[in-house]
Amino acid sequence: NPSDSPRSTKVQELSVYEMNERDRGSPAYLRLSQKSVNSLGDLVPFSNKVYSGDLQKRLGITAGLCILIQNVPEKKGDRYEAIYSFYFGDYGHIAVQGQYLTYEDTYLAVTGGSGIFEGVYGQVKLQQLIFPFKLFYTFYLKGIPDLPVELLGTPVAPSPAVEPTAAAKACEPGATIVNFTK
Amino acid sequence: NPSDSPRSTKVQELSVYEMNERDRGSPAYLRLSQKSVNSLGDLVPFSNKVYSGDLQKRLGITAGLCILIQNVPEKKGDRYEAIYSFYFGDYGHIAVQGQYLTYEDTYLAVTGGSGIFEGVYGQVKLQQLIFPFKLFYTFYLKGIPDLPVELLGTPVAPSPAVEPTAAAKACEPGATIVNFTK
Amino acid sequence: NPSDSPRSTKVQELSVYEMNERDRGSPAYLRLSQKSVNSLGDLVPFSNKVYSGDLQKRLGITAGLCILIQNVPEKKGDRYEAIYSFYFGDYGHIAVQGQYLTYEDTYLAVTGGSGIFEGVYGQVKLQQLIFPFKLFYTFYLKGIPDLPVELLGTPVAPSPAVEPTAAAKACEPGATIVNFTK
Repeated sequence: NPSDSPRSTKVQELSVYEMNERDRGSPAYLRLSQKSVNSLGDLVPFSNKVYSGDLQKRLGITAGLCILIQNVPEKKGDRYEAIYSFYFGDYGHIAVQGQYLTYEDTYLAVTGGSGIFEGVYGQVKLQQLIFPFKLFYTFYLKGIPDLPVELLGTPVAPSPAVEPTAAAKACEPGATIVNFTK
Repeated sequence: NPSDSPRSTKVQELSVYEMNERDRGSPAYLRLSQKSVNSLGDLVPFSNKVYSGDLQKRLGITAGLCILIQNVPEKKGDRYEAIYSFYFGDYGHIAVQGQYLTYEDTYLAVTGGSGIFEGVYGQVKLQQLIFPFKLFYTFYLKGIPDLPVELLGTPVAPSPAVEPTAAAKACEPGATIVNFTK
Repeated sequence: NPSDSPRSTKVQELSVYEMNERDRGSPAYLRLSQKSVNSLGDLVPFSNKVYSGDLQKRLGITAGLCILIQNVPEKKGDRYEAIYSFYFGDYGHIAVQGQYLTYEDTYLAVTGGSGIFEGVYGQVKLQQLIFPFKLFYTFYLKGIPDLPVELLGTPVAPSPAVEPTAAAKACEPGATIVNFTK
């Protein structure tokens, strides 16, 4: 009975880029604290584009909420609690939660998923390249079957200069996954 | 040592209805985007009633937040990121996260639970019957002991016309689970 | 291959105190319902301090969001849906989701974690000592290696009078974990 087979504990690495191309009205900085400095009370819904780590394919989007926790003047940045998902078209999604620090790389928890990511757990490393427009993520995923090859291309080394291919940016046929999330 | 026993990977199906009977002040559509069209920045806290799939018993409530991600004019609908829980009285709760599309069925991730749902994982199919008042969910749950029989009645086939029994709607004795969540 | 070793299902108890020392501008009660009574639509971002169960060490902070679900007049309290994380400095974090009732103890789901808590699941008991300033949590954690001894000191029995040691409150050397979360 395949439904009774043991859950995989193998670690699978998955790299993606998150890009804000300023065409989605994101982020929506809601200054509900009504203070002039970013403060607890501010909320930041957001949604950006997601590309494969090799920057050859548009995969989908991110979608979720950042909760401003504190301004950190000595780091000239902010601490957020981030709760969001990564959407991969027909493949499904991965949900994550954890700290987003505008001045430092962090690890977030993978809390679950759907589709090929059903039953996923593990963590994800968040690396900021250009705040808040370009981020690189390395997922360390467990609990799921082997990932499809098209998600596993060799990642382009993260740097502020990286860009998706023109074809991926234009969502041309062959430069997206099937029914990529718009 | 039972605490060291392997975690079940058996899939258990659990069907429930979510009904908005317009008596809970839900949803609270917070138009924080300050735009006339639903836009990123809008937030929608909500809480509806939950009935068993056979519509014989009131189980509890849903509770959580929908984050408006984008208006999708070609579908005449909206994409939300939904983060919420299903409460089942003394049985405990199930937490979920994923996309809620007002125009299409989706799968969300099951991210955890309490009580009899402690350690749960898997996914849940969301089917909308009447936007946004009547929804049908099929949970595919793993990692937990066998569910109680009273949750596993044969579901009524989902359609816009379904209604809970009068006894369940009135929360009469025998037509609720123990200490159903109000 | 250690990455293929079976995931532990042993239960590990971890006790912590959450304290609001009124120096973090928390909670931020956002009365977005625009009603005089706490109502669906209100949102409450928050962040408090976290101490070890033995009150000898400052560990870090909590960070997240409470969503007001309903005022419960017969209990003179409120129901919230709570989505937040516990940060433990260099050790990582634990994410949780579930009900927070201002008038009753509850169990929340552990939805994931990072660092030493990578792959964690289970539940956590929330006990309120002084609303909303002092809470005691007992985590029942599975899926992770043995916790470090410094997190496992014998907890001080929860009561409204408990206080962290002066050294922990002052975050003195030896009275915090490494790089405790501020």
